[in-house]
Amino acid sequence: MLEALSSYQQRNNAQLESWLSQIPHQNQPLIEAMRYGLLLGGKRARPFLVYITGQMLGCKLEDLDTPASAIECIHAYSLIHDDLPAMDDDELRRGQPTCHVKFDEAIAILTGDALQTLAFTILAEGQLDPRAEAQRITMVKVLAQASGANGMCIGQALDLAAENRQVSLQELEEIHRNKTGALMKCAIRLGALASGQKGVDILPLLDKYADAIGLAFQVQDDILDIISDTETLGKPQGSDQELNKSTYPALLGLDGAINKAHTLLDEALQALDAIPYNTELLEAFARYVIERKN
Amino acid sequence: MLEALSSYQQRNNAQLESWLSQIPHQNQPLIEAMRYGLLLGGKRARPFLVYITGQMLGCKLEDLDTPASAIECIHAYSLIHDDLPAMDDDELRRGQPTCHVKFDEAIAILTGDALQTLAFTILAEGQLDPRAEAQRITMVKVLAQASGANGMCIGQALDLAAENRQVSLQELEEIHRNKTGALMKCAIRLGALASGQKGVDILPLLDKYADAIGLAFQVQDDILDIISDTETLGKPQGSDQELNKSTYPALLGLDGAINKAHTLLDEALQALDAIPYNTELLEAFARYVIERKN
Repeated sequence: MLEALSSYQQRNNAQLESWLSQIPHQNQPLIEAMRYGLLLGGKRARPFLVYITGQMLGCKLEDLDTPASAIECIHAYSLIHDDLPAMDDDELRRGQPTCHVKFDEAIAILTGDALQTLAFTILAEGQLDPRAEAQRITMVKVLAQASGANGMCIGQALDLAAENRQVSLQELEEIHRNKTGALMKCAIRLGALASGQKGVDILPLLDKYADAIGLAFQVQDDILDIISDTETLGKPQGSDQELNKSTYPALLGLDGAINKAHTLLDEALQALDAIPYNTELLEAFARYVIERKN
Repeated sequence: MLEALSSYQQRNNAQLESWLSQIPHQNQPLIEAMRYGLLLGGKRARPFLVYITGQMLGCKLEDLDTPASAIECIHAYSLIHDDLPAMDDDELRRGQPTCHVKFDEAIAILTGDALQTLAFTILAEGQLDPRAEAQRITMVKVLAQASGANGMCIGQALDLAAENRQVSLQELEEIHRNKTGALMKCAIRLGALASGQKGVDILPLLDKYADAIGLAFQVQDDILDIISDTETLGKPQGSDQELNKSTYPALLGLDGAINKAHTLLDEALQALDAIPYNTELLEAFARYVIERKN
């Protein structure tokens, strides 16, 4: 799985660099910081989901570059803003200084802002399969719904509000369904929409799969924050506990959290069973989500 | 002109409130802060430009609400982020505490983020004249180009980089063409695109008008920062000097800046002369830009 991730990652990086290189004022810190935030490390899990969903549906790789790049811009912007001193105050990300440490806070705020905008530029301007042109505006809608006050942003706000207090399992799921899940689900939806009508037809099944792996991804993140180490994670181990964040292991115990991850994997695999295409890579990704070490 | 602004402002506020009310988690600080940032005061100059450009071209008001609301979301987000301690560190905006003072910095960052996303949600989902549907994705493209690293964001970055050093007139124009001008030009373009082919046909003339009034708007802002007072401005008078910002009066003298504003007005009016529609309101707005007191 890591090999497969790596090959799509290289493709995605080249695409992102190509978008960045078209921006004027290349020598300005803003553009340098956009490049730093976008291209330095990262597994590219969301672009990967776009690519493997689209390929399963017979879409060409070059017709999936657009949604893959757009969603990575949203993810990268969210990491830069989440790391800011007023938010999670993290100094290390992917084993490197965070954007506001490398540059400064003002540039980090603007870099996140500009990367969010770039996501929509890419979706509006990038190449799509001509048969998917009719879905382009739906793709903009789906990306915006997943990113803003209906998705990722409210997830981060709920997460901040939950610091230093005990939340219920239901509240925790609501946080992560928005904070992490919305964007992973969006990646899969974009891959489907970029494939035209075939993708539209199986959206409900893909959503079921995505809901399960999105949550499993966060459960595993919480588990790794306890059982892994800073070097493997590329960010400080134990930072959840330090911020008194509610986590699945805190609510369910470590064994309970591991069980939860396996239950979610089963749900994801069941959803794939009903999809009449080759779901091998989506299945491998689901297993990877709960088996990964960082 | 202030009366005309006020009636469109009320229409735009009702539209913005309607979009806000559709977001879940209404009781969360994030949504409260979005409402605070969007609806508390402000002249709604950019929505006004959308409306009067579209109306000139025969577009119905209800088919202009979508771009008018979208562009105001971008403007409101930019104000919230620009006011942050790491940026301009302003505590007063439109006579009220700025978002990070009223709420906190984390919420202010997320609020800006979510308002930017809301702009794209609105453009993707909001009502348009059926004859303008073909322009919808172009509208997304135009808004993104004006807002991000090719426009407003690089303008703010260049502005920050220019603090505490002398910049040339050319550099100052580059800053403001991006920081303020790009979004005002975009407002006019969106009004034209929402009107369908008639609008597309006169885009070059509208761009010439917009370039002139966008710059004039900033020249007048710089002038008001010197000759007005804090109560009238709704923000601290003299804050440019305090931050050692380069301004038109600093480079050209106060009289030179006033002359510059009038030259730009003449350019704007010349561009309107070539437009074969009733340009009365666009003309009145151009005069208002350099005659306004706040």
